Amino acid sequence: MKLTKFIPAIAAAATLAPAFAFAQDAASAAPGEQTAYILTTVLFLVGGFLVFWMAAGFAMLEAGLVRSKNVTMQLTKNVALFSLAAILYYLVGFNLMYPGDAWTIPGVLGSFSITSLEAVGLPAEEAALDYASVGSDFFFQLMFCATTASIVSGTLAERIKLWPFLVFTIILTGFFYPIEASWQWGGGFLSEMGFSDFAGSTLVHAAGGFAALAGAIILGPRIGKYKDGRVHPFPGSNLALATLGTFILWLGWFGFNGGSQLAMGTVSDVTDVSRIFANTNTAAAGGAIAALIMTQVMYGKVDLTMVLNGALAGLVSITAEPLMPSLTEATLIGAVGGVIVVFAVPMLDKMKIDDVVGAIPVHLIAGFWGTFIVAWSKPETSYITQIIGFATIGAFMFVVSAILWFILKVTMGIRVDAEAEINGLDIHELGIEAYPEFHKG
Amino acid sequence: MKLTKFIPAIAAAATLAPAFAFAQDAASAAPGEQTAYILTTVLFLVGGFLVFWMAAGFAMLEAGLVRSKNVTMQLTKNVALFSLAAILYYLVGFNLMYPGDAWTIPGVLGSFSITSLEAVGLPAEEAALDYASVGSDFFFQLMFCATTASIVSGTLAERIKLWPFLVFTIILTGFFYPIEASWQWGGGFLSEMGFSDFAGSTLVHAAGGFAALAGAIILGPRIGKYKDGRVHPFPGSNLALATLGTFILWLGWFGFNGGSQLAMGTVSDVTDVSRIFANTNTAAAGGAIAALIMTQVMYGKVDLTMVLNGALAGLVSITAEPLMPSLTEATLIGAVGGVIVVFAVPMLDKMKIDDVVGAIPVHLIAGFWGTFIVAWSKPETSYITQIIGFATIGAFMFVVSAILWFILKVTMGIRVDAEAEINGLDIHELGIEAYPEFHKG
Amino acid sequence: MKLTKFIPAIAAAATLAPAFAFAQDAASAAPGEQTAYILTTVLFLVGGFLVFWMAAGFAMLEAGLVRSKNVTMQLTKNVALFSLAAILYYLVGFNLMYPGDAWTIPGVLGSFSITSLEAVGLPAEEAALDYASVGSDFFFQLMFCATTASIVSGTLAERIKLWPFLVFTIILTGFFYPIEASWQWGGGFLSEMGFSDFAGSTLVHAAGGFAALAGAIILGPRIGKYKDGRVHPFPGSNLALATLGTFILWLGWFGFNGGSQLAMGTVSDVTDVSRIFANTNTAAAGGAIAALIMTQVMYGKVDLTMVLNGALAGLVSITAEPLMPSLTEATLIGAVGGVIVVFAVPMLDKMKIDDVVGAIPVHLIAGFWGTFIVAWSKPETSYITQIIGFATIGAFMFVVSAILWFILKVTMGIRVDAEAEINGLDIHELGIEAYPEFHKG
Repeated sequence: MKLTKFIPAIAAAATLAPAFAFAQDAASAAPGEQTAYILTTVLFLVGGFLVFWMAAGFAMLEAGLVRSKNVTMQLTKNVALFSLAAILYYLVGFNLMYPGDAWTIPGVLGSFSITSLEAVGLPAEEAALDYASVGSDFFFQLMFCATTASIVSGTLAERIKLWPFLVFTIILTGFFYPIEASWQWGGGFLSEMGFSDFAGSTLVHAAGGFAALAGAIILGPRIGKYKDGRVHPFPGSNLALATLGTFILWLGWFGFNGGSQLAMGTVSDVTDVSRIFANTNTAAAGGAIAALIMTQVMYGKVDLTMVLNGALAGLVSITAEPLMPSLTEATLIGAVGGVIVVFAVPMLDKMKIDDVVGAIPVHLIAGFWGTFIVAWSKPETSYITQIIGFATIGAFMFVVSAILWFILKVTMGIRVDAEAEINGLDIHELGIEAYPEFHKG
Repeated sequence: MKLTKFIPAIAAAATLAPAFAFAQDAASAAPGEQTAYILTTVLFLVGGFLVFWMAAGFAMLEAGLVRSKNVTMQLTKNVALFSLAAILYYLVGFNLMYPGDAWTIPGVLGSFSITSLEAVGLPAEEAALDYASVGSDFFFQLMFCATTASIVSGTLAERIKLWPFLVFTIILTGFFYPIEASWQWGGGFLSEMGFSDFAGSTLVHAAGGFAALAGAIILGPRIGKYKDGRVHPFPGSNLALATLGTFILWLGWFGFNGGSQLAMGTVSDVTDVSRIFANTNTAAAGGAIAALIMTQVMYGKVDLTMVLNGALAGLVSITAEPLMPSLTEATLIGAVGGVIVVFAVPMLDKMKIDDVVGAIPVHLIAGFWGTFIVAWSKPETSYITQIIGFATIGAFMFVVSAILWFILKVTMGIRVDAEAEINGLDIHELGIEAYPEFHKG
Repeated sequence: MKLTKFIPAIAAAATLAPAFAFAQDAASAAPGEQTAYILTTVLFLVGGFLVFWMAAGFAMLEAGLVRSKNVTMQLTKNVALFSLAAILYYLVGFNLMYPGDAWTIPGVLGSFSITSLEAVGLPAEEAALDYASVGSDFFFQLMFCATTASIVSGTLAERIKLWPFLVFTIILTGFFYPIEASWQWGGGFLSEMGFSDFAGSTLVHAAGGFAALAGAIILGPRIGKYKDGRVHPFPGSNLALATLGTFILWLGWFGFNGGSQLAMGTVSDVTDVSRIFANTNTAAAGGAIAALIMTQVMYGKVDLTMVLNGALAGLVSITAEPLMPSLTEATLIGAVGGVIVVFAVPMLDKMKIDDVVGAIPVHLIAGFWGTFIVAWSKPETSYITQIIGFATIGAFMFVVSAILWFILKVTMGIRVDAEAEINGLDIHELGIEAYPEFHKG
């Protein structure tokens, strides 16, 4: 998902064009520009609906990992945050993130205007000037914006009020995410600097993780979580849902990483997309198996929630560079992600940062690992630049998020009262239980 | 999803052909006819499997919104209705709906014969005469027929007997739906008249809604729903499932609306498909947010089931014309759909029409809104014609459905006895509980 | 999914090439080799992610059909087995299954080496030598290997230990499956013999079924299942999940069968893929309706779990030949699959083979039916050859699986102790309940 990818793709088609003039080569010729446009647009559409599906994955994962008294609230937040992201990204985000020539501050701040798609029935001559449909690109990119917001909701579950969370989502999806993402994918200063983040280990996952971390610190832990110097685990209410959510996210990730190739109109591009699919899958598998073995070795029992988060951490880890690694490298990169989760979850608990679903280990910490390790397989990157890029995004997201959470805290208040928290947000805030007929233990 | 779309698509390819003869233009040439055939077929296949997935969405939505004592029955109905639709559409529906030259009554009644697909290994010269594979078109269209039946099952849940419901499904999917759909998509009298319904706000959603409405009136409300002049809500047993179902439907809708472009072999068509994806998504978001705000304002609490139905109503609203509106128009069209749901659900209750999942507000009433508002963004349509078309389909579906429900009532009986209804259809009718181990509250 | 399919596909493109030299034919020309390469690769990628999704389907189906005390374990096994399959298939399986010229024993045993994908940014001239991206083919084939392992986990649920099951999975996915699959799809002795199994009724489904059968016999039935000469049913804990799982599998099967066409770069191929989609769908519908009717007739009540397994049996039945049958033939083939399930489930119980989810009837017995009936619609096959091929694979899988289960039994032990089985594997083996807050009945 590098903007600079666009130009080579078109250039490549142009280069092959003369060869096409020889009729005897026709059968082996590269697809024409219009066919390439169609194929790349298909990549965005299919990739986009797969990433859309991740919104359902986050909803199920989080609904499964909270206690049953907070499930309706968690579901409501997930539907609402996706919907708000969709609207904000069209009203503000897309043009703020891809400013083209219209930077407000070059390399740092894009332009403010709403998204307008191509005219209906666009004639081929006009469209062929571009590499794919703007509508498909918008559709695809919007899903990444929504994913960033999804990451936040899990960490802050079971105690945050609905409306302040939604206000945060509006600012995050309309402003914070598009601004930081423009620094790399909009051709901003990070991309100039040589930072590399193929599909968003930093720009999406760690960015969401930093917004969540700031929120978790300002919001504080759930009542009873850290008491008498001990960590009291609150088991998730429905591990079948959590597992379903993980499988949904895994599926959606093929679109997330594969679609970030941003081109499918040449043999080279589709071959790269294939490689990305294979690497994405094996990294998830590596993360799951690493967490499986680690929890067996460390605790004597396999922990399903760790295995699920291990798979997700594997996915986050490979997201910064799903193309260059070999299958073996991808498996190892994912496996380290899985190991990270097993250590980072109790570490956060020691710091009394209460992350309900483990989103900070999975998205922020494995996001760092994935970003850092790009330099292993991609020659033109450096570990130092990767660290600088990560730190830049992290500092920005943490600071602006903390400021916003703080403002929300002193104005609207962000935390439900103790009675609501103890009795459940569903009854107190929404008046609807998710499972009204199943007795609670 | 206009049959007339087919011819222009082929004509366009033909028009571009001469330009292709100039070798120097080859790289920018439109895809050849055979490539276009492949790409459009892919659209039908991918669109088709996405709409198939909506069958699961309806099943989960409905299973989540009924009480746990009726979940097995609701699941059984959903699997069975899809299966029956698949068989009936191949035995009768497809040829009844797309009569081509073989109308039994021109513009009104198609022809009766079973579907036969192309020969295996079809040579290119034969296939190239057509714009896409017949098999893919059949696969895609069949899913719309099944969707119509899915809409009915939710409204009538928790009190209708299994077998009369399945008999109704057989007639609906084999006859009612194909007949009314042929009036527009088969090139019948409504399409002649200038009625416009791109992907089926009227032909699928409102049609299903009218069949459901007729059934709800004849079947009567659930015991205890309207008692002592008050409405007694029966909360759904599993809102996580209902939310999952909504996300599934939202995902499937990209295929529903996007696939209804019916062509993907040109730059113009794939650009239109992209626009449809983006508009479909934003309309759903608009519907969800509108319902979120409305329930907060009206009741002081956000109502998740309204938000879910708001998203679905947004989707239904944009279905009649997902291509022409701008993103802003699409968001507003969807938002009005969401508002409609919030008002229509209690309105139906006032009329003592017991619609268990809210399918009539979502599919029929928002379906009317979506059909009506086509004239806002599509110059060649008129509000009057849209109303006439909607009323024609509505009257037909309501009358034939009411007659059939009445016949079923006096022959087989359509309602379980009071004891079965109170103790649950699962135990009484099927002998299997959906959640046998979870105590009921 | 016949390896021999590859060569004709490329040959066809070559044959059409000369016609392309006539500029006046350009608009109707077949896609060039590179476009065909892209389209076939897309088939593998989309088919592959659909089959990936089946892993979630098996997980949900099985989690829904076991008792709630064993749900976490069943989910853990499903995530772990898929992850192990992914890793083993890349380390060993792919090259063992597609040996090309490097058979260790010609026609019987492939070669041992890890999978290496194409170089990044592969130039078109190199890739055009092949018919599709190796990475996409690997991705697609890997999913079939994982499916085979998924089948085993359901049968042996509720009593097998985690780690011996995972060791079995490693050997199954790394060795047993690739070896037997190479005999047909790797160009081995069964394909030489004229055996026909398009997408794997035998190679995947029955193979998994035989591995499960050997395990079920050696493991023995669950405590209390067969007591006092009666069969005691243990109802599944969550039929909504089981239904969801069935819909997921049904969706994934479009990729399973459709992708097995292995080519989409010609009009003929995409037309065949369409036909496969339509046939796959109607076979599932036929199986569901047959089971619906049979259970009504035989037991006086429709049995949802039989309907779900009926749909799956319909899918397995059409998998050996989803292309050649007409829609009517496909519906009948699927319907017989559904009938088989209704009879085979109690038959297995009579033999005291305890198959928790009905995987042996669905995958092994309907797999035999599907393999056998290929000869009905495919002229170049014979019933005898089909039986021989099925018996060969079956004998191999049963014997090697039985040996391995036996070794695991005498070394690690494969069965949990009685207390763990009675109290539930979740508490005893994993320490985490899937639904900790829902009281058990």
